[in-house]
Amino acid sequence: MKSSGLSGKNPDQLIVVKIGGNIIDNEVKLEQFLKDFAAIDGKKILVHGGGKLATQLAERLGISQTLLEGRRITDGETLKIVTMVYAGFINKRIVCLLQAQDCDAIGLTGADGNLILAHKRNHPTIDYGFAGDIDQINSNLLVDLLDNGNTLVIAPITHDGHGQLLNTNADTIAQEIARTLASTFSVNLIYSFEKSGVLLDANDDRTVIHSIDPAYYEQLKREKKIFAGMIPKIDNAFAALNTGVQKVTIGKAEELKLIILNAAGTKITNE
Amino acid sequence: MKSSGLSGKNPDQLIVVKIGGNIIDNEVKLEQFLKDFAAIDGKKILVHGGGKLATQLAERLGISQTLLEGRRITDGETLKIVTMVYAGFINKRIVCLLQAQDCDAIGLTGADGNLILAHKRNHPTIDYGFAGDIDQINSNLLVDLLDNGNTLVIAPITHDGHGQLLNTNADTIAQEIARTLASTFSVNLIYSFEKSGVLLDANDDRTVIHSIDPAYYEQLKREKKIFAGMIPKIDNAFAALNTGVQKVTIGKAEELKLIILNAAGTKITNE
Repeated sequence: MKSSGLSGKNPDQLIVVKIGGNIIDNEVKLEQFLKDFAAIDGKKILVHGGGKLATQLAERLGISQTLLEGRRITDGETLKIVTMVYAGFINKRIVCLLQAQDCDAIGLTGADGNLILAHKRNHPTIDYGFAGDIDQINSNLLVDLLDNGNTLVIAPITHDGHGQLLNTNADTIAQEIARTLASTFSVNLIYSFEKSGVLLDANDDRTVIHSIDPAYYEQLKREKKIFAGMIPKIDNAFAALNTGVQKVTIGKAEELKLIILNAAGTKITNE
Repeated sequence: MKSSGLSGKNPDQLIVVKIGGNIIDNEVKLEQFLKDFAAIDGKKILVHGGGKLATQLAERLGISQTLLEGRRITDGETLKIVTMVYAGFINKRIVCLLQAQDCDAIGLTGADGNLILAHKRNHPTIDYGFAGDIDQINSNLLVDLLDNGNTLVIAPITHDGHGQLLNTNADTIAQEIARTLASTFSVNLIYSFEKSGVLLDANDDRTVIHSIDPAYYEQLKREKKIFAGMIPKIDNAFAALNTGVQKVTIGKAEELKLIILNAAGTKITNE
């Protein structure tokens, strides 16, 4: 029997899916993805990122974006824009499309019901602006809403409890929610994005690695075979597994059904 | 004993407050209003409008606004803007500021949890665009969240159940929610805005009418003493009273505490 961090009878299954920006930017792909997501039986949470819409809106408004090592700094004007785009336009569009599939979705930010308490990132030399690092997840609220039959759609906006909204990485939110709920549910965490999984050749979608354990991960890193942007995702995946999450897969949003059937994507495993 | 449409023991009190645009546009007034609102004991719902932010954003983006008899038509681009501004920026700012006052607020649109099902307005000659007329309120969701200790903050965006978001008047949402919940709670509905109540002289804030019953309302209309924009608000108020809402007051947002103590505003009464 696998150790799941749970005792007693079999816990309910919970699927936590992170959906990346490239799918959100594509109307046809987003609608198909949401149909597949709505069709999943049982309890589920969708955490979404932002796509290019926020950048496009900032450009149209003539708001200059400060980049630091390729990452956008969330200044006051940018925070307003991501709040409008992530919590307003994208979140409500997803909720509305899921409702049309008879999936009773509720959209939330970290401020709603004090769902995700965070603090403004502290760094000795770099000012990251209104970037929020997570302190606490309100798991009671999540469990109550899931038990009530609701599917939750979470935008990557958090708050500090003192009246300040903050911008938080959606991958991290998905991981922290999965970890927090792993003591209540058997959690299946799926990072879905535009590629078919972790690739041996970043330019060839047919080179999916089917499974990565810690030893193989070290080897892949040593041989510099892993695309740099993938490392935080895999680190997040191992962190989730090491704190009770049952299963973590990285795969293509369009293959969500196959990922759930263990027939696609890269399974991250610590066994 | 007053008839409340309720039987048995005294029902819980519920306060439903509609807050108008002028307060939302003023940061200092909004923060003070939210402190006063957070300090109200017991169950409460805040329905907010949009203020000038949506119009300003449309202007900055160069999106032209179609006006029809002074009312803005919600075309596709305008719907995106009001979704971003009402459901994103304003709703999450209010929720975050209430959380800072230890008021456990959750922000919702009509799409979330299928809270407000509406249909695109049908008119034989005028195309109102994506304006939504309300069909149904999900009172179970409201009661569950209120019983759970949450304060609800509702943005004036609804949905049609087929994947279309719609723009719905916030006064109407406040009235329909108050009516729907009148069978469960003793509901006190407050329309708060920039004036001290219904005025005999629209330009003199000291001429507040303290109480209006149906006979006096007819007289005021006959004598053309009521400002035209006030008539739909008062009609809404009577409709609410006639369908079980316990109390309706129209008054100044800055006097919320006094309104609750019956010491300010115009009380609408059908007795």
